[in-house]
Order: sequence, then structure tokens, then C-alpha cells
Amino acid sequence: MAPSRLPVMEIFGPTVQGEGMVIGQKTMFVRTAGCDYSCAWCDSAFTWDGSGKDEIRLLTAEEIAADLDAAAGNTFSHVTISGGNPALLPHLNELIDLLHGKGIKVALETQGSRWQDWFLSIDELTLSPKPPSSTMTTDWSVLDVIVGKLAASGRNFSLKVVVFDEQDLRYSTTVHHRYKDVPFYLQAGNDDVQEQDSSVLLNKLIDRYKWLVDTVMTSTELTNVRVLPQLHAWLWGNKRGF
Amino acid sequence: MAPSRLPVMEIFGPTVQGEGMVIGQKTMFVRTAGCDYSCAWCDSAFTWDGSGKDEIRLLTAEEIAADLDAAAGNTFSHVTISGGNPALLPHLNELIDLLHGKGIKVALETQGSRWQDWFLSIDELTLSPKPPSSTMTTDWSVLDVIVGKLAASGRNFSLKVVVFDEQDLRYSTTVHHRYKDVPFYLQAGNDDVQEQDSSVLLNKLIDRYKWLVDTVMTSTELTNVRVLPQLHAWLWGNKRGF
Ligand code: SF4
Ligand code: SF4
Repeated sequence: MAPSRLPVMEIFGPTVQGEGMVIGQKTMFVRTAGCDYSCAWCDSAFTWDGSGKDEIRLLTAEEIAADLDAAAGNTFSHVTISGGNPALLPHLNELIDLLHGKGIKVALETQGSRWQDWFLSIDELTLSPKPPSSTMTTDWSVLDVIVGKLAASGRNFSLKVVVFDEQDLRYSTTVHHRYKDVPFYLQAGNDDVQEQDSSVLLNKLIDRYKWLVDTVMTSTELTNVRVLPQLHAWLWGNKRGF
Repeated sequence: MAPSRLPVMEIFGPTVQGEGMVIGQKTMFVRTAGCDYSCAWCDSAFTWDGSGKDEIRLLTAEEIAADLDAAAGNTFSHVTISGGNPALLPHLNELIDLLHGKGIKVALETQGSRWQDWFLSIDELTLSPKPPSSTMTTDWSVLDVIVGKLAASGRNFSLKVVVFDEQDLRYSTTVHHRYKDVPFYLQAGNDDVQEQDSSVLLNKLIDRYKWLVDTVMTSTELTNVRVLPQLHAWLWGNKRGF
């Protein structure tokens, strides 16, 4: 059987993971194209809204691994697959297995709208269901199945919700209580993905993070939780490829 | 037997853990007094240099738990014990067990100069050996024993080194290669613990963090590592109690 081709939007790094359960990790990024959602505040809309169409390459796992080596040589041993929604790609296992064979760990983020069996091979899997401000609707029956299978497998996974407002915070509480044994991350949302002045952006982002921290600290419903910024936006603003 | 009394410097929170393996975690802090080191850049020197002597209280585990409740009611389920060096306290197990009995998780940080059997009860233990810029000398034979026992136990622990300069970075590489299967965190040091203007400090800290990130990203010796800032200093400067 011929190897599958995966729609790749960009490959970059090494850089630090700016979010979630492996924040700070030195990693390469492979960003896949295509998403089944269209979040109001998507910071990767070029992966699905047509604006990045000309940048998409259809690559085999071997070609992706060769690109990673060309970009970073032997400076990395961790790869993060992001999107778009990489869970749209049933054959992603070919890339995951190839990287594992080279001793490389693999992290992945998805919103939790589709199951793939290769979820059970991911070293650090982040499920990031989208709150009301995204304008998307969570299919709880699908998310229940995904969380159930991952919990039963004993894999290292977490839930992360990006929070923009009070309504999102109520949604977060619902998610946390529904899956109360799953490590839970709250992330302050970046509501200005257009701002090009990175110091103006930094002040806004710090204010939003402080608001989220202050609010969560007084909550009796959100206790065993982690509250994180998007570190990469603090450092490099809204630039792509960092 | 009468319950032991622990030298407590301060109890505060809830706030977010600003560093290391549980960065972002909503937690209470219990800071114990006393340290067997005297690092050049210690940001908690008041715990051991005599300047905070009048603030030390000798409290039983029950009294500490009561103080935590008085400060934070039912808004928390995680406590971080810091110092000073809490590993100087053989009876700390009384506090750890009491908190666990209430369903509270316990994190702790120590430089790894002394073993205590209660290390095996800590939910997230950070060993933070001190690099050359601290002017301290690592006792590798002690650290070997500590890492060996923790690794054999399967507990959740990590190594963290604060880095100020190139020499510290070489020390970090030595630590990481000596204990290569232990999750490894690099932290950009705050070389200005006196600066009171938090925006001046923020710019300095971001520059130091970017330097560390840039340097580690090109390294072929530091690949599966995490590079983190001290988030609390970015947010609240050098103020105590945050
Ligand atoms: S799920 Fe992610 S990639 Fe898809 S639209 Fe939402 S934010 Fe963008
Ligand atoms: S080990 Fe920690 S508390 Fe002790 S002197 Fe060094 S930095 Fe300060």
C-alpha cells in the first residue's frame, strides 16, 4: 500500500511550547491543514479558511520527518502536532509511529470532536473543547467517549479550555466537573489576534491572564486546576512560526 | 507523643505556582524557615539570614491546616511547601499526611542536599540543585541517592535548574545527562531581586528568558527539556506573598 499523504500547513522550530500540559517543552511543530470547527477567535484560521491554501503540501510521513531533520538536525527529540484539527486525519499514525521509532516524543492538541485510535499512541494529548465565545457547540456524547477511552488506557492526557469571559468560565466549570479526575488547564484567551505591536499585546495579555487568575483564585468550584497564559504570544506576539 | 512543631515563615494564597513542573497550579503556599545553603541570589534569604526571624512561628500540623483554612476556606485543594529548605524538617510527614487526609495534594521543592523518607509521599517533588552562580557546591553522592530512590519509587518528580549564565547552562547539561530519564526543567534566573518597578523588572526577565530559550533551542545536548520563566515575578515583580 502506498504511504498516505498528510496535508501539512507548516513545519517549524525548535521553539518552546507556549501552552498547556507541556508548556515550556522544547519542540518542533507540524501544523496540519483543515478543521471541522470555525471558532470566532481562531488564531490559526489560515489552516481552514482558504487564506493559506497555497501553502498546503501533501506529504508522506517520511517526507515530514525529512523536513524536520532539515529544519532542526539533532537539536530536537519532541514534536507537537497541531492544526487545524489533526484528528481529522485517520492515517496520522504513520507519522506518529515513524517519530516514535526515532525516539521522538509526540504531543498533539485537538478540540475533541472526533476519535482516532492513534490517540492512544500520543505521549501528551490535549483535548481542548471550545467554550461559548467560540460560537461552537460541544458534542458531549463524543467527548464522553474520547475521555472515557483515554482514561481507561492510562495515557497522559489533559483537558484545556480557553477562557475569554464569565460565560466561558462557567463552561470550564462544567467541563472540569464532568471529567473531574482529568488534569484540567484554564488558558487566558487572546482576544486580539490582529494586534501587531507586541508590547501593546503583551500588556493586554497580562491583564487578561491576571483577570483569569484573580477570578479562579476565589472560586470554590475550580480548585485543583492550572491557570496558564499563552507564553508564545507574550514573547513573540501574533507572529506565525514561533 | 506530642505533635512536632514546624518553623513556619509564611502561609499565603491561593495563588498560581509560578515555576517548574506544576506551573500554573492553583495552590496555597507554606514557607518553612531555615536553609543549609546560602545561595548568592537567593530570593527567600529572609527565611535563613535572620532578617525574618521575628516572623517565624512554631506551629503544629493541625495549626498550619487551621491557618490554611482561615486564609482560603474551601477555595483550594493543593498546597506547596517551600522554603528555605523544607527537607531539613524530619517531621514534615505530619503535615503531609494531615493534608492528604483532607484530599489535598502536596507539592514541595528542595535543592536535593538531604533525603527524607516523606519525599515518597509528595505528589509533585521538585529537586532543584544549585548551579555555580549560586556559589554552592552540589554533593553528587547525596543527589544520586535521592534521585535513585525517587526513580525506583515511581513517584512524580522532576529536576529543575535555575540558569543565570553560560557556566550554569553547562552545569544544567551535566545534571540532565547524569539523570537523563528524569523530567528536566530549565528556569531563567531573576538576577535583580531588589528591583521594585515591576515593569522594568518584566522587561529584564523577558530578555533573560528569551536568551535562555534561544540558547537551548540550538543545543544538541539539551533536547527533551522544558524551559520556563518565573511567572509570578513577571506578574507581581519582587513582592512577597504572591
Ligand atoms: S478548533 Fe482550533 S483550529 Fe479549529 S477553528 Fe477552532 S481554534 Fe481554529
Ligand atoms: S537553597 Fe533555596 S532557600 Fe536555600 S539559599 Fe539557595 S535559593 Fe535560598
